[in-house]
Amino acid sequence: MKHVGFSATSAAGLSEFLANASTLIQQEILTAIPDKEPQSFLYDLMRDYPSRGGKKFRSALVLLSAEWFGSSISEALSSAVAFELFQNFALIHDDIEDDSLIRRGKETLHRLHGIPLALNAGDAMLGLVYEALLANQQSLGYELTFQILAHFNEVARHTFEGQAMDIGWIVHDIFPSKAEYQAMITRKTGWYSGKGPCQCGAMIGKASPENIRCIGAFGEAIGIGFQARDDVLNLITTSAQEAPNANTGGYGKERGGDIAEGKRTLIMIELFERLSQTDANRLHQILLAPREENTEKEIEWVIEQAKSSGALDAVIVYCEEYAQIALECLQLLPDHPVRHLMKELVSYLVIDRDF
Amino acid sequence: MKHVGFSATSAAGLSEFLANASTLIQQEILTAIPDKEPQSFLYDLMRDYPSRGGKKFRSALVLLSAEWFGSSISEALSSAVAFELFQNFALIHDDIEDDSLIRRGKETLHRLHGIPLALNAGDAMLGLVYEALLANQQSLGYELTFQILAHFNEVARHTFEGQAMDIGWIVHDIFPSKAEYQAMITRKTGWYSGKGPCQCGAMIGKASPENIRCIGAFGEAIGIGFQARDDVLNLITTSAQEAPNANTGGYGKERGGDIAEGKRTLIMIELFERLSQTDANRLHQILLAPREENTEKEIEWVIEQAKSSGALDAVIVYCEEYAQIALECLQLLPDHPVRHLMKELVSYLVIDRDF
Repeated sequence: MKHVGFSATSAAGLSEFLANASTLIQQEILTAIPDKEPQSFLYDLMRDYPSRGGKKFRSALVLLSAEWFGSSISEALSSAVAFELFQNFALIHDDIEDDSLIRRGKETLHRLHGIPLALNAGDAMLGLVYEALLANQQSLGYELTFQILAHFNEVARHTFEGQAMDIGWIVHDIFPSKAEYQAMITRKTGWYSGKGPCQCGAMIGKASPENIRCIGAFGEAIGIGFQARDDVLNLITTSAQEAPNANTGGYGKERGGDIAEGKRTLIMIELFERLSQTDANRLHQILLAPREENTEKEIEWVIEQAKSSGALDAVIVYCEEYAQIALECLQLLPDHPVRHLMKELVSYLVIDRDF
Repeated sequence: MKHVGFSATSAAGLSEFLANASTLIQQEILTAIPDKEPQSFLYDLMRDYPSRGGKKFRSALVLLSAEWFGSSISEALSSAVAFELFQNFALIHDDIEDDSLIRRGKETLHRLHGIPLALNAGDAMLGLVYEALLANQQSLGYELTFQILAHFNEVARHTFEGQAMDIGWIVHDIFPSKAEYQAMITRKTGWYSGKGPCQCGAMIGKASPENIRCIGAFGEAIGIGFQARDDVLNLITTSAQEAPNANTGGYGKERGGDIAEGKRTLIMIELFERLSQTDANRLHQILLAPREENTEKEIEWVIEQAKSSGALDAVIVYCEEYAQIALECLQLLPDHPVRHLMKELVSYLVIDRDF
């Protein structure tokens, strides 16, 4: 087990903790990717996204949650790495599925190397996730390692279900209701970007079932809120060239990329409710068209409608509501200095994030 | 643990055993895929390839190897299912990477549903592999379950490395040497189609390290030989409309598909050594061209050259050599009635398969 020289409670604040955690996880991920052949067809590709930065908040959630329930960063490290590897796997495959252009400020992996090599690099990244989860056995023993593996499989299953809904709607020209959107985002983002890492950390800290349930509800709320905030940022960002990092700015995706990809975000669902029939038809056409058929002018028209109609503001309110749910969950958990950092993290992920 | 009413030694011969095993594994796989929403965007897609048949010889290798070393089909069943799920995952993603048209006699999954949904269904199938491997815990206990998980991760890592080489050569217009081909095929096929399932079965039977090594060498030889035989069949098949099954015919892929996809098969490497400069240049052009630019006439020209030059025969000899290596490995293992079935399986997979 690797000795780690910092903890959440020893950090001066959230910023310092996130910076320390991000540096550590980055090192661990780059060490986990083999440094051998085939380099240029596989391992170089796998190192690409992790080397571009990223907030690594899923790892931070595992570490914070573990510390809250009396465990250490050393004991939670392999699981934190596993969630971050899963995030990098998901980004590679999502970018192919959405045919996204920019990720963390640079061209997406499949645009750089073609779909076949990028797809395979994503598969190998998912393989590494399970290597990291097996490494838990050294510090956590068989039974807990096994429970975490089973929990992780549940996280992955929900993620793939949510992803199927999200991309299925685009493939089949379906526009979901708000309830359908909610079912999708709870699966796609609620689990692996919130509930999963939080509950994993609590399991490592041997929290009670009730506390595991409660921190899971907290995680689900920030996962959903984070995604909605991400959708907002996709429309209000001006530059895609700065990669996101633990503390500094950079949104890292192209402005309006969600619109170009035809994504059924909550903003679009809110917007449809507010448009005239003529404008709603125009929005339909834009979302249904292949990305290369939409001009910058059309993307900007949609962004302008989202702003002027109040759809964007409605989603900002939705983010605030989920932040509130998250904060209420935190109050139900046993008192611990980590609570303060978790509260800061809610604002950081769901409300303030405006780079 | 599920009770299974047949065994390798109780079967009248290889055919009966393969038929029984294939039926059982098919049922188990279709049961493992959740019967719930999202059906049409995810679980229906996951059921598609398994429902098309397939020889399921990787599962059979796990079961035979386990029985050889004193274990039962019941104890080896989850692992056998895991290898077959991995095979179905690999087929879905390979078909995207190669842009293959036909699989098991029908259109490939991404041609039916588009890359995004097919890719995600493949990911979910890989998730199910790990669910099947975790199910081992009930019958095998923690320690052996973890050993199998670690072994499986090694199998997966080698497969992704081999796949990276195979598709990297096509993306980067590289023609490999025989030694490079050998390194690729050992990783890509030797592990998950032979060494992996055989060693997994032996681990379940608590075989000695020496016997695990030896049955691994056997498995690697049949995996490599099987792939070379598959490459031969791709050029001599006349019909793609019949799906392969445990005992009956059906190759299930399009004639000359490997050529259309520009695959660097051993046959092509052997052929380059035998062609005049002019014909070699023509072959280069055909293999480098996008599949839609090659006519049936060009594909047939390549097949004719492979036959008349002796390249095809050279690979048939290569198959026989690997069959011989496999048979020699079998002789080094302790005496057991399963040996006879394994010998039959060598011929079935590497030599006789001519549908």
